[in-house]
Amino acid sequence: MSQDRKYAAVSLCPKSQDILTLDAGGHPYQPGVCFQDGIRRVDYVLTYNVKKSCRALRPSLSITANGFFRRLRRSLQCCTGQPSGANRDSAVEKAALDQQEEEKRLLRDEFEDNLREMGLELEKDEHSKIPGVGFLKIHAPWDVLCREAEFLKLKMPTKEVYQATSRSKMVKLKGFIEDLTKPLLPDVEESRTHNPKHVCYPFSREKQHLFDLSDRENFFDTKTRGLIVFEVLKRTKCMSSEDDVGFPSLLAKGIYTSAYPLHDGDVDDEAPTPNDRKILYNEWASYSSFYKFQPIGLVRKYFGDKIGLYFAWLGLYTQMLIFASVVGVLVFLYGCITVDHDIPSMEICDKRNNITMCPMCDRACGYWKLKMACGTARASHLFDNTATVLFSVFMALWASAFMENWKRKQMRLNYKWDLATFEEEEESLKDHPRADYENKVKEKILKRIEKKPHKETKTVKLTWRDRCPAYITFTVSMLLMFFVSLAIVLAIVIYRVTTQAALQMSTVSTARSNVRLTVVSTAVIINLVVILILDEVYAKVAVWLTQLEVPKTDTSYEQRLIIKTFILKFLNSFSPIFYVAFMRGKLIGRPGKYLYVLGLYRMEECAHTGCLMELCIQLSITMLGKQLIQNNLFEIGIPKLKKLIKRFKSKREAGQQDPFSGNLRRYEKDHFLEPFGSLNPEYMEMIIQYGFVTLFVASFPLAPVFALLNNVLEIRLDAKKFIAELRRPVPARAKDIGIWYNILSGLSKVAIVVNAFVIAFTSDFIPRLVYQYGYSPDGTMHGFINHTLSYFNVTHFEPNTDPLQPFHLGYQVNVCRFKDYRLAPWSKTPYEVSKIYWAVLAARLAFVIIFQNVVMLMSDFVDWVVPDIPKEVTIRIYEEKKQMVEFFLKEEQCKTQSLPNIAPEGDRDQSNNQAYPQRL
Amino acid sequence: MSQDRKYAAVSLCPKSQDILTLDAGGHPYQPGVCFQDGIRRVDYVLTYNVKKSCRALRPSLSITANGFFRRLRRSLQCCTGQPSGANRDSAVEKAALDQQEEEKRLLRDEFEDNLREMGLELEKDEHSKIPGVGFLKIHAPWDVLCREAEFLKLKMPTKEVYQATSRSKMVKLKGFIEDLTKPLLPDVEESRTHNPKHVCYPFSREKQHLFDLSDRENFFDTKTRGLIVFEVLKRTKCMSSEDDVGFPSLLAKGIYTSAYPLHDGDVDDEAPTPNDRKILYNEWASYSSFYKFQPIGLVRKYFGDKIGLYFAWLGLYTQMLIFASVVGVLVFLYGCITVDHDIPSMEICDKRNNITMCPMCDRACGYWKLKMACGTARASHLFDNTATVLFSVFMALWASAFMENWKRKQMRLNYKWDLATFEEEEESLKDHPRADYENKVKEKILKRIEKKPHKETKTVKLTWRDRCPAYITFTVSMLLMFFVSLAIVLAIVIYRVTTQAALQMSTVSTARSNVRLTVVSTAVIINLVVILILDEVYAKVAVWLTQLEVPKTDTSYEQRLIIKTFILKFLNSFSPIFYVAFMRGKLIGRPGKYLYVLGLYRMEECAHTGCLMELCIQLSITMLGKQLIQNNLFEIGIPKLKKLIKRFKSKREAGQQDPFSGNLRRYEKDHFLEPFGSLNPEYMEMIIQYGFVTLFVASFPLAPVFALLNNVLEIRLDAKKFIAELRRPVPARAKDIGIWYNILSGLSKVAIVVNAFVIAFTSDFIPRLVYQYGYSPDGTMHGFINHTLSYFNVTHFEPNTDPLQPFHLGYQVNVCRFKDYRLAPWSKTPYEVSKIYWAVLAARLAFVIIFQNVVMLMSDFVDWVVPDIPKEVTIRIYEEKKQMVEFFLKEEQCKTQSLPNIAPEGDRDQSNNQAYPQRL
Repeated sequence: MSQDRKYAAVSLCPKSQDILTLDAGGHPYQPGVCFQDGIRRVDYVLTYNVKKSCRALRPSLSITANGFFRRLRRSLQCCTGQPSGANRDSAVEKAALDQQEEEKRLLRDEFEDNLREMGLELEKDEHSKIPGVGFLKIHAPWDVLCREAEFLKLKMPTKEVYQATSRSKMVKLKGFIEDLTKPLLPDVEESRTHNPKHVCYPFSREKQHLFDLSDRENFFDTKTRGLIVFEVLKRTKCMSSEDDVGFPSLLAKGIYTSAYPLHDGDVDDEAPTPNDRKILYNEWASYSSFYKFQPIGLVRKYFGDKIGLYFAWLGLYTQMLIFASVVGVLVFLYGCITVDHDIPSMEICDKRNNITMCPMCDRACGYWKLKMACGTARASHLFDNTATVLFSVFMALWASAFMENWKRKQMRLNYKWDLATFEEEEESLKDHPRADYENKVKEKILKRIEKKPHKETKTVKLTWRDRCPAYITFTVSMLLMFFVSLAIVLAIVIYRVTTQAALQMSTVSTARSNVRLTVVSTAVIINLVVILILDEVYAKVAVWLTQLEVPKTDTSYEQRLIIKTFILKFLNSFSPIFYVAFMRGKLIGRPGKYLYVLGLYRMEECAHTGCLMELCIQLSITMLGKQLIQNNLFEIGIPKLKKLIKRFKSKREAGQQDPFSGNLRRYEKDHFLEPFGSLNPEYMEMIIQYGFVTLFVASFPLAPVFALLNNVLEIRLDAKKFIAELRRPVPARAKDIGIWYNILSGLSKVAIVVNAFVIAFTSDFIPRLVYQYGYSPDGTMHGFINHTLSYFNVTHFEPNTDPLQPFHLGYQVNVCRFKDYRLAPWSKTPYEVSKIYWAVLAARLAFVIIFQNVVMLMSDFVDWVVPDIPKEVTIRIYEEKKQMVEFFLKEEQCKTQSLPNIAPEGDRDQSNNQAYPQRL
Repeated sequence: MSQDRKYAAVSLCPKSQDILTLDAGGHPYQPGVCFQDGIRRVDYVLTYNVKKSCRALRPSLSITANGFFRRLRRSLQCCTGQPSGANRDSAVEKAALDQQEEEKRLLRDEFEDNLREMGLELEKDEHSKIPGVGFLKIHAPWDVLCREAEFLKLKMPTKEVYQATSRSKMVKLKGFIEDLTKPLLPDVEESRTHNPKHVCYPFSREKQHLFDLSDRENFFDTKTRGLIVFEVLKRTKCMSSEDDVGFPSLLAKGIYTSAYPLHDGDVDDEAPTPNDRKILYNEWASYSSFYKFQPIGLVRKYFGDKIGLYFAWLGLYTQMLIFASVVGVLVFLYGCITVDHDIPSMEICDKRNNITMCPMCDRACGYWKLKMACGTARASHLFDNTATVLFSVFMALWASAFMENWKRKQMRLNYKWDLATFEEEEESLKDHPRADYENKVKEKILKRIEKKPHKETKTVKLTWRDRCPAYITFTVSMLLMFFVSLAIVLAIVIYRVTTQAALQMSTVSTARSNVRLTVVSTAVIINLVVILILDEVYAKVAVWLTQLEVPKTDTSYEQRLIIKTFILKFLNSFSPIFYVAFMRGKLIGRPGKYLYVLGLYRMEECAHTGCLMELCIQLSITMLGKQLIQNNLFEIGIPKLKKLIKRFKSKREAGQQDPFSGNLRRYEKDHFLEPFGSLNPEYMEMIIQYGFVTLFVASFPLAPVFALLNNVLEIRLDAKKFIAELRRPVPARAKDIGIWYNILSGLSKVAIVVNAFVIAFTSDFIPRLVYQYGYSPDGTMHGFINHTLSYFNVTHFEPNTDPLQPFHLGYQVNVCRFKDYRLAPWSKTPYEVSKIYWAVLAARLAFVIIFQNVVMLMSDFVDWVVPDIPKEVTIRIYEEKKQMVEFFLKEEQCKTQSLPNIAPEGDRDQSNNQAYPQRL
């Protein structure tokens, strides 16, 4: 028995008979990767708290390194019982604590016995270098691996190799493209050679002869081993206590503190053949390879399908952003080039146009000259021109092209990684209920027994009645959050209005000329800070709300959490933007009769040439700020700062080397890494960004560029985090990105409508069109500005609304102008909205209908024309299956030929056949 | 060998040793079901023309019966060479014909040899009762059945039985519903008992012991046998001629004239245990069971999956129509009840309102009183009220509920019929190219060889270049058809306008008062006739266009044909309706300046209270007419008429019995039935009806009722046709209704937009709302009519446009009114569109946007909330799979236990394992 074990572990634990064996360079050679015997590999590690004498620890406390200071202190606290003081009752408490500890130990013992019964091999290490933490190392022997692989229907490579025959014609082109993209490929095995694909087949012990078992110790790679042990852990239960306790409950109750599979090795390992982790660290997780493709196959091999799919998706999204960025920049350049030929802004800036505008507010503001709006008018043109309309059509098509592309990419990966037949539906049925759910059900049973002790308890489920309070809380909180968002928008509006009024009254002319920009920018920055804070708050709220609902399975929990988080974060990020786009400047009244909020503050107006400019500022600052601060500051800056502080400290402490740095065992090192939470925050960040890129793209064509720049960094940043800073996640199986796809496609649909409204209502595109084709005397834009301005007779100011300084401009003003379509003071119904107003409104609405339906039709057309499964994949799947069947038959024939011809006889006995002739 | 054959055929060919054996009642007992030996069943029949002495035929010519007169004559013509005359060169021609016949015979011989090589057994009958027709009867023996079943991965029932455990709680409710619906169930086996389901598994000869082979001759039912022979036929090729000729080519070239599997028996068979065909005829295809559910399982068992799915779909659609009908009738009743309280129509009918209206046309027409429009105003209210708006929201939701329900039903059937894992993608790859395609490819190869004789010919495909002419023809024809439809619409408009003008000038007052109704109705009836004729023309055009494209496979051919036919038929049926809904009465000009088409005909106006009434007439007549004429006249009337004529004739010919009626053999009887074409016309009819039900439902709430009545008939009608009048179709495998689902869901989406526009633009709903909330002095509808009427000063009539009889009403008219929002004659810009016009237009457009987006959101929500796969099916599939695996393991154990323990040893030899301990 031990012989084959040695064989199995030979390459994984090469010479680890002694744990601290050093290799040639004097570096320790992966200690802790194997059991004490140096043979059996550690596939999984559970940790738990152990009570220990605390004295041995003290000296090393100050030499805390590698960012595990906090955790160390926590374990110390546990060790001493209380941090300090409160000596009264401490003996009693200690006894209680001891008893509790004892109970935990008993449960652990039982659980471990059960694990052994399942065939796992265990080894304990309670005297590790980390005081107070016990390690339970788990090894899955060959039989267990085989059994579980069969049970999980894991697809393993067979001996058969499938080489896709490349189809004529395109070979040359393909070769050319390959040569071209060579420098973009990462320097890993999979991109260097076109390995033929091993045909995979669900592993079965009875069909072992089909599989290539020559390299038996590497047949199941480290990822798969981790997965298998994890599945065994999930199935194992403690039965002794009054109710079954599953592994999730054990973790939740703190009986075990953490559970993780081991990383493959160190990222700075200097072995001649680098481990996968090191390869990934060098070729994937480094900023210097930002321009390269990701080694997505290796990522999947190391982290599993789910994380592989995430990075594949992120990669595709980033690639697709390149197209959007190029077009976006072109659109922006078009705006820059044409700004000097734009007739409306030329008219505004024209000094000969001596138009006196009405005051922007009652009393405090004075009359002003239209040419003062020259700057903002020119700036507006950059984002508000014909090209932007085309660009938002383009982006809608881009979005559906992206979705289609992803579907196809996903199918390709499904084929390449053999995920296609993995059935999630069934998986979810097998899913173990969550610990919370089990507890809740137990409570319910207890209650029921109290009420009707004689009635037998059937299978008890949580129904909607049990969840009713949670749903009510959910609805109430959602409404609350909605109003919080509204309140924040309002608060910022008030800030803007008051500051603007204050600045406008100031006497410094430079301050006054830049009033708008200053006010808008500061307001947006305040808004940004609020958004960032609320983002964290809302994340917590979403978790709390989901826990209240007590979903049954992990899948359900995740889905509900995602939806809640998405709604809240979306609300948070986009409500100010929606306000600027659609509410602001729409209900302002007219000079002398401005609308007031709460009787105090005037409703805001937009700049003279539409709100698009301000929407653009709002969008760019929110988006850039969120990305810069959340990504760069939170994700890069703070860890860097921590490291700096740590280095500074350790230098000050002693000149000697950090005692923990080198000779920690593998599982101890991994213990100091952050545990892997979930992919959801990463996805969420990207989805919100996708919202910024698509939803208001009509007003901010540079959004894709900023998103692209961010994502190029983001990929490497995430990679670094996964490789170097997190414990290795248990590889989750998945065949698609799940609910995120639905959210994405929902966002794409909403984006079409939102863009239609932005172009129609926020930009001046429609009024310009209406003027040019409906009212312009010569079919050009000349006279547009005059057309959009209504007249106001200054004698019609109501008491206390006329400006304080009527001679501010140096002359008597009789009639001033304001931007709106209203009837002239000399008409029968002065200041009523005019016919043109309604005509323009109808044109705006008609544009929305046409835009929405045409673009949706085009998207649907793209969706319909592009097949979801690439043709070549269909063919390959088909060919591979055919080859598989042939291979099977061949193997079966080999097998039956080597056997005496008994089996068919037996077969014939069973079916009551009457000697049918076997003519074929 | 012959012994087991006898066994195999024992129940199918009970005592048919002699073909004309009579049973107890003196009726022949299924002669022709078996070969001459009375043992082997005829699974498939091919027919071909044989040259025969023609003399024997003559006498029977006049006794043609059962509608095969034409076919008989055709075979006679073939027999005599030419119908008559043209004796010159006849000898030469005859020789050529003989040679051709000889070639055909040789090809047939080769093909038959190949069939025999494939294992099929053949028998010829060239001396049947039908002169000139030879029959090739095909029997598939057991080995062939098994081999092909394995190849086709046919799922066959295993010994294992799965009994779904019913989940608590709902049992009582379920039982109650079952009791309630008992009288609605058809009287067939499947609905009487809840048979547990046999677990099915793809048939494999190696795993025969898993299947229940006790009743071996019925293991493969007649449907499956037909399918299997058909698949063998498709694969078999003639190789001797210069190029391979597949079976489709043989059929296309007339080497075989037809191919069909046999029906199970006669519908009036009087055997004690009725055959499936008779059961279906009595329980399904009879009008008396119109209120019952369909025995859908039996239908599928007899006709195969595809036809089963069609009838299941039709059944569900009809069931869903019940809800829509009930609500539709309620909405109509609401209109009827509220008509007396409708203020606008009360105002029109009020005699005190003495409003003089402007003439409806130039010169010829006179002034008229508004109260003359009283009748149409009241009628309009029936369809144009608040309830209709709600009804069209309801119908949009109904449509998405229907789609969801169908998805679920389909999943249920997929589970019940074990279709779930049948993979169409792969199927399409295996599909044989069509004969046309093969010919075209051959031509291409020949051309290429001519050009470059030395270049080797690789696999040649038809590329888009070869198809370019076809695509151009397609585009041109489509445009042509589009213009034809437009022209027809225009022609009918002109008919209406001229007739109306003519009638309006008539002096008979009753004719004049009913002018509108008369004109509209006659025009619609003419339109209907044109539509019916064009429907047939377009069907032919679609086939022609598709054949031009030379699609590669049958699947592709079918898809392209369906899309083309759908577009053309949709255009044909709906273009006049779209015209009435959205074009008519929109651009009419104003009195004195009416718009003219082609300088001659005035653009049509609608009735005073909106076009909805006329849309309703147009819709109802088109829909009812199409259904009545196409279904009842074409599908019931004409066959009935044929039968009557036939009976009349045969009675006149002789008092003796029809020599063909009783003692025809089974395959001869089936030969006289019409060949089965495809399901597409049936689907198409229903889809166009679905269009009528959903697209303009806002204007015609009774559409669902009429559709329901039609469909109740339609189901039985189709059933009768399939059972009694068509040859048995080769059972096609399918797991969904394919492209029809996409068309349906596309129509549902379009329906939302169309209904939004109908309510906004065709009905008076929005103007009423705008008046009530924007202009009404007291918030009621009083004064609405006055509000919608503009003033016209009769002195402003341009020369030659003023009415000929200005004193027609008995008094001098100075100012008349017309329905439009225009400025008064005394304003600065008389007769310009007024502000109200634009406001109403904006409101209409806003309504479209809101309606479309809200309803779409609701539909998507329904789609998202209802899971596509019913929970219970997911559970059952899972449980069944689990049970299946257990059953497999059990069977395997049984097998291995009965074997000496050699297999594992052999297994172990193959994998190079080093004696691992088998600890688990």
